[in-house]
Amino acid sequence: MSIIVQKFGGTSVATAEKIHRAARRAIKAKLAGKQVVMVVSAMGHTTDELLALAKEVSPNPPKRELDMLLTTGEQVSISLMAMAIHAAGHEAISFTGGQVGMVTDAAHTKARIRSIDGSRIRRHLDEGKIVIVAGFQGVTPDGAITTLGRGGSDTTAVALAAAIGAEVCEIYTDVDGVYTTDPRIVPQARKVTQISYDEMLELASLGAGVMHSRSIEFGKKYNVPIHVRSALTDTEGTMIVAETKGMEDIVVRGVTLKRDLATVVLQGVPNQPGMASKIFAQIAKHNIVVDDIIQNIYSQGAEANIGFSTTTDDAKEAAVICRELTKEVPIKAIEVDDKVAKVSIVGIGMKTHTGVAAKMFNALSEAKINIKHISTSEIVISVIVDLKDAEIALRTLHTAFGLDNGE
Amino acid sequence: MSIIVQKFGGTSVATAEKIHRAARRAIKAKLAGKQVVMVVSAMGHTTDELLALAKEVSPNPPKRELDMLLTTGEQVSISLMAMAIHAAGHEAISFTGGQVGMVTDAAHTKARIRSIDGSRIRRHLDEGKIVIVAGFQGVTPDGAITTLGRGGSDTTAVALAAAIGAEVCEIYTDVDGVYTTDPRIVPQARKVTQISYDEMLELASLGAGVMHSRSIEFGKKYNVPIHVRSALTDTEGTMIVAETKGMEDIVVRGVTLKRDLATVVLQGVPNQPGMASKIFAQIAKHNIVVDDIIQNIYSQGAEANIGFSTTTDDAKEAAVICRELTKEVPIKAIEVDDKVAKVSIVGIGMKTHTGVAAKMFNALSEAKINIKHISTSEIVISVIVDLKDAEIALRTLHTAFGLDNGE
Repeated sequence: MSIIVQKFGGTSVATAEKIHRAARRAIKAKLAGKQVVMVVSAMGHTTDELLALAKEVSPNPPKRELDMLLTTGEQVSISLMAMAIHAAGHEAISFTGGQVGMVTDAAHTKARIRSIDGSRIRRHLDEGKIVIVAGFQGVTPDGAITTLGRGGSDTTAVALAAAIGAEVCEIYTDVDGVYTTDPRIVPQARKVTQISYDEMLELASLGAGVMHSRSIEFGKKYNVPIHVRSALTDTEGTMIVAETKGMEDIVVRGVTLKRDLATVVLQGVPNQPGMASKIFAQIAKHNIVVDDIIQNIYSQGAEANIGFSTTTDDAKEAAVICRELTKEVPIKAIEVDDKVAKVSIVGIGMKTHTGVAAKMFNALSEAKINIKHISTSEIVISVIVDLKDAEIALRTLHTAFGLDNGE
Repeated sequence: MSIIVQKFGGTSVATAEKIHRAARRAIKAKLAGKQVVMVVSAMGHTTDELLALAKEVSPNPPKRELDMLLTTGEQVSISLMAMAIHAAGHEAISFTGGQVGMVTDAAHTKARIRSIDGSRIRRHLDEGKIVIVAGFQGVTPDGAITTLGRGGSDTTAVALAAAIGAEVCEIYTDVDGVYTTDPRIVPQARKVTQISYDEMLELASLGAGVMHSRSIEFGKKYNVPIHVRSALTDTEGTMIVAETKGMEDIVVRGVTLKRDLATVVLQGVPNQPGMASKIFAQIAKHNIVVDDIIQNIYSQGAEANIGFSTTTDDAKEAAVICRELTKEVPIKAIEVDDKVAKVSIVGIGMKTHTGVAAKMFNALSEAKINIKHISTSEIVISVIVDLKDAEIALRTLHTAFGLDNGE
């Protein structure tokens, strides 16, 4: 009998009524002949409330104890979900992460899954029960309770699906799938029927995905089809699957916009080996996350401009660190621009189509948008533009690559 | 190094401030050279709130899932307590019942402890940590989460104290000890310095104890001294200990009042073997808890009056059952009196002192209180009186047996 995993996020189990709705969905799948595993997050804002409680007690709580605290949120949800299924006349049983052998390393608050023992789940599925597992949590080999960090419940669901050989992992959420871009900015945005793991990973890292990248990596590694869909309707959502030949016909799957970025550019840095290394070692030492590296070398000169983009939050500290650096590295000037944004196009079709970048730059040029920096990877082209131009750039590219609704 | 167990009830950990207060108490004991284990209940009304949440989802939730739900309350408390101790600059580590090997049977919502593995607790104590354990909960040998039922956190504390050889189990609560009687009714009530397990067990079953009887039974069985004391002050409370010779000098340790009782008396029942058995089998079958059995046999007659006391809630159903019984047993009349109360005197001194009952009846008689029924056991004498006389009876006996304040 085929197994499906259904994951319900916090908004989908925020009230008793929503819990019953999720329960009905699992029962429906069971009646359709599937074995069903549910993975459930904490109700609504529970995690935030628990964090607030911790802050009341301690400004800097030990991470092990934070995990002990936060995992109660999912434990409440799974028990209520089991009650809801029982109330509807079906068999269900709930398990914490530890109880189903979700073993992680000991990196509290951001633990990584080491192994999963699917045998207990399979046994209860074979007894005809719907099995409900707490998302976001695991245990160390020593039995300490851990959490998987942001997006942890998605990771639980996909990893479980891989471990027990589920045919699909359904992610129920408050949106009905993955969109070509943010519909709040581009009303013509369309739902994507199918997307590859790699494209989805890029969308996630560009801040546009509905899922966290770690869960998608799991899906890719173990080839688990992930179905992102609405908890409120029966409409089909978006399937995240392994890349197929046909998928390359679409050049651009989606376009994204990342705000709250800043660029820090060091001007007049000696054009000699070791300079970049010195600069970025210092940046990394202070835990500043570099988004993209920007380097313009004056073609024949002795000097270069080296820079990077980072969050607006980190940019201030980064500038201070760079000013410190002027003591050892002869930097002529430091230029910080915190009114920029990154606009990207993502698609595996780029691998086989030519002229994509040219088409992108041309469209932006026609819209009179100045490109400040460019970065590319195999399936992504990104440009940094002035923040004021960002939304127009997004709409322009959405149209230029044929993603508008109805096309 | 000697170990102490400190148990904090829900009211003693209801807020962040109270958690810090409890933490300071544990730290103080540690600085005084003790190894400290804390057992903590769920904060304030958490358990009631979780039960309300369950009721919202299901009118009749499976007990296994109720346990899964309710145990989150203590898990929240232990993590916050560990954070509070860390914030004060000391080492602490929290554990769920399952994590410290609190193994129970599988009777969900009222599980009984089967075994405790104290080794993990001892290891962390030896590393200099304050160990915090979730009260009220355990796991089955199969790993399912259970709860110990009413008063479960006290049971956890005393059982743990026994398992790890603690010198004392301190129960911190919102009263400062065990009183000779309810001070709200008898202002002269005094705090008892020392009381035997047996006396405390009787007080608990008469509804007057601050602790549940199961925890006292554990204390008695493993001879763990239990110190009931206030979470708010440093005043010494009441020590519950094994009976010593000197304790018998006090004839009566306390007097109690149990309201919400009713008597059901079946009049004119044939005075022949098997009648009582028939009646009480029927009562038991309907899960009605009989408080005391009342039997007045007409000295030379062919008929007897058989009756019992029970809660006023159960009395109505009991009367219906007895009326049904008249079809098989020739009962002349059924008399229900739901305006009665039970007043009792408790003391191990009764075992060696004579005339205690006579003194009791005489005192009540002088106060013009009519005794409706009498029941006795080795260290208790109880009378059932009219509800309207109950408080006067309590005060009368408190004075008569020399328990008033200042004596």
